[in-house]
Amino acid sequence: MPVRVTVWNEFVHEKKNPAVAEIYPEGIHETIAQALNRAGNIAARCAWLDQPEHGLTDEVLADTDVLIWWGHTAHHRVEDRIVERVHGRVLAGMGIIVLHSGHHAKIFKKLMGTSCNLKWREADDREILWITKPNHPILAGIDDHFVLPSEEMYGEYFDVPEPLETILISNFTGGEVFRSGLTYTRGAGRIFYFRPGHETYPTFHDANVQRIIQNACHWAAPVAGGTVPVGCPNPKKGWV
Amino acid sequence: MPVRVTVWNEFVHEKKNPAVAEIYPEGIHETIAQALNRAGNIAARCAWLDQPEHGLTDEVLADTDVLIWWGHTAHHRVEDRIVERVHGRVLAGMGIIVLHSGHHAKIFKKLMGTSCNLKWREADDREILWITKPNHPILAGIDDHFVLPSEEMYGEYFDVPEPLETILISNFTGGEVFRSGLTYTRGAGRIFYFRPGHETYPTFHDANVQRIIQNACHWAAPVAGGTVPVGCPNPKKGWV
Amino acid sequence: MPVRVTVWNEFVHEKKNPAVAEIYPEGIHETIAQALNRAGNIAARCAWLDQPEHGLTDEVLADTDVLIWWGHTAHHRVEDRIVERVHGRVLAGMGIIVLHSGHHAKIFKKLMGTSCNLKWREADDREILWITKPNHPILAGIDDHFVLPSEEMYGEYFDVPEPLETILISNFTGGEVFRSGLTYTRGAGRIFYFRPGHETYPTFHDANVQRIIQNACHWAAPVAGGTVPVGCPNPKKGWV
Amino acid sequence: MPVRVTVWNEFVHEKKNPAVAEIYPEGIHETIAQALNRAGNIAARCAWLDQPEHGLTDEVLADTDVLIWWGHTAHHRVEDRIVERVHGRVLAGMGIIVLHSGHHAKIFKKLMGTSCNLKWREADDREILWITKPNHPILAGIDDHFVLPSEEMYGEYFDVPEPLETILISNFTGGEVFRSGLTYTRGAGRIFYFRPGHETYPTFHDANVQRIIQNACHWAAPVAGGTVPVGCPNPKKGWV
Repeated sequence: MPVRVTVWNEFVHEKKNPAVAEIYPEGIHETIAQALNRAGNIAARCAWLDQPEHGLTDEVLADTDVLIWWGHTAHHRVEDRIVERVHGRVLAGMGIIVLHSGHHAKIFKKLMGTSCNLKWREADDREILWITKPNHPILAGIDDHFVLPSEEMYGEYFDVPEPLETILISNFTGGEVFRSGLTYTRGAGRIFYFRPGHETYPTFHDANVQRIIQNACHWAAPVAGGTVPVGCPNPKKGWV
Repeated sequence: MPVRVTVWNEFVHEKKNPAVAEIYPEGIHETIAQALNRAGNIAARCAWLDQPEHGLTDEVLADTDVLIWWGHTAHHRVEDRIVERVHGRVLAGMGIIVLHSGHHAKIFKKLMGTSCNLKWREADDREILWITKPNHPILAGIDDHFVLPSEEMYGEYFDVPEPLETILISNFTGGEVFRSGLTYTRGAGRIFYFRPGHETYPTFHDANVQRIIQNACHWAAPVAGGTVPVGCPNPKKGWV
Repeated sequence: MPVRVTVWNEFVHEKKNPAVAEIYPEGIHETIAQALNRAGNIAARCAWLDQPEHGLTDEVLADTDVLIWWGHTAHHRVEDRIVERVHGRVLAGMGIIVLHSGHHAKIFKKLMGTSCNLKWREADDREILWITKPNHPILAGIDDHFVLPSEEMYGEYFDVPEPLETILISNFTGGEVFRSGLTYTRGAGRIFYFRPGHETYPTFHDANVQRIIQNACHWAAPVAGGTVPVGCPNPKKGWV
Repeated sequence: MPVRVTVWNEFVHEKKNPAVAEIYPEGIHETIAQALNRAGNIAARCAWLDQPEHGLTDEVLADTDVLIWWGHTAHHRVEDRIVERVHGRVLAGMGIIVLHSGHHAKIFKKLMGTSCNLKWREADDREILWITKPNHPILAGIDDHFVLPSEEMYGEYFDVPEPLETILISNFTGGEVFRSGLTYTRGAGRIFYFRPGHETYPTFHDANVQRIIQNACHWAAPVAGGTVPVGCPNPKKGWV
């Protein structure tokens, strides 16, 4: 059974900024989804902000194993009731992969419980991502490091809770560092935050970036037969 | 310098239920605050739901190193703007100790990012709390276990993120277990969740319970000279 | 490709104690291996203490994805050079599942860095194992709890490092608790400690126990294409 | 009561290499100990390899709250029985701070359970250390980053277990990154690994480095009244 992935993008920059449209003519979501569909054993489709219910209806989410999230300039336009719906689905076992500027998305801040603030700079920094967790499923096929020639800089302190696992750390030309690959769980759901992917760079065409997102879809998918937490049962008698 | 503690209680059961009032005639908050003030090196005062701004004004919070939270039946009456205010203070370094049924308080759920659901039963279970982290500052003066003769049962699965440290686990007569002492950090703030303390039992008169809350106040207090995360600085040039 | 599992047992009690031999006539290892081979997608074989090199030659280990370890009375008879060999293989990516009294095995203590001491009692306690990590791959197909009617008691404090994930906690008739399912990584290797399995009880015939060990084999197996840490390279020049 | 600190140094480079002796005329240990004694509320003394029992007799260790360890070229000359003794003391609650090339010390590898390998290069890299855990006691008085103009490079993958907390990450001129401040516990003992401090640089004269080591001594010291794990008691009857 393929992993059912929904790639969500706010899809705003691509319509307004010709430089972004040149890199991602059909939108960042399509570039990601097409790469996932080429990878095999993944069935990816797309959703975006301007669709009814942002494309994230109950039906779509019920049919989604892993949700990928890219947002940047329009976080405030995502309706709270949709955020609540996605949050409930994550706690019930849906995986979620949050990319780059999605660090400030309502859903990510709600899952983390923190501000998710960070330092940043748009200055064509060279980014080197180093592996800090060998043999992690999300890093299958990745060497001990890889390089993105130009990216936006993100720097520590990144205001997120201590992660379950820190699997990638970035070095930037400017002298900064950043925890670029972080895993968490919330309820029955698995969360992967992955740093790269500013809209003005061809990052989502990079083979290493595509491979990591593909691996993360398999890692974050709910377990067949996995236990799902229920509400607040009140057992009237004990087990003894 | 004593640690400045504010003990917050919804203070509802004590006014409505004579059985509770008999155990805590001045309210749970007063029992806790008086024990803390007797302990030395702590200056504790109280705040409660029915005060203006729930007693948690900007001035009070600016003067608070550690906030203790007890709530149960009136979580929904706590205003969202006060929750936001407390949340901001925790990220900026104020410690918070959440007691018992505070697991469903808005502030705790916001900090955890999960439902914080659990199993429960009111049936006079005997609770044994076992230490799972020797030499932890919160457990100073506590033996390898201690017993509460009667308590409400809380059972796993407790829907909270994997904690930084699990320092206490409870065994209940009915056969359940519960992670009863959990530490987290969010931003610059330290969080301690401590399970016992149902309003119909004299738990907050127990010497072990009092000692643990006292220790936790010292553990959760902000560090003198501690770094505090700031917003989103945009360094225009790198450090190299 | 099936996961290649080697089930290692000291295989001493079964030869000396008729009560144990009655439960495990071919040895604990055979009961476990046969259950794994019935499960599908696992190829399990056995090794034991009295074989040359304890059955853990370089060839056997090179052909092993996951090693399962049961030992109790003969930990001291395991040669240090074999322990070193197994340790090196774990760091290079081989998974290891340590069962019950294996908590005092040389290899487990070497991987943990602690004494691995615990409280214990042989008194036919009833053990209830509660899930504390819903949707974890090791718990696929397991309900929110399961019961073993009779087992040896293990009690906290269990002297192991704070685990990556605590996925099961046990309640015993005597009032104790124990962290019964713990995950760790060391180097590229994944480690699962699983508490039940005293030799005088039919624990390894239990369907839930068998399912958990089976799941753990898939979880602990090395990732195809996974990065493996190398020694101490000395890059003469930087990456810039 | 001041924290009782023993600063251990192999004290070899300083006697053989005039360049090192010029920076640390009395040895690295004396520079560290004198800074600690100036700080107040710490009573530091020294021990080194060539003393009887490496200066780490039972008496010295019984009188030590926190042990600081610097070694590099003579790890193999540290006797195993002394390593066992120090290990036992850490499990019983003594704190340990391992500096720089101490990553390959026998005691550190024994506590970690891994190879503790890393990448390295001696090329006068500029090191920037970034704070990743605001308000941590070890970081009191430290800004969001600090710079060491010249240091040996250490690069990831650093083969240590996932830490309890990652509090500092370094950026090197060459493009590498390294988790430079890591906390662990083993038994009742607290462990801090701190990266900087190659013998050919004046790192231990740096005010930020001195402050961090000083803070770490207070953080790692045993808790007054802290529980200490005992052996393997065998409670003949349960608590119920």
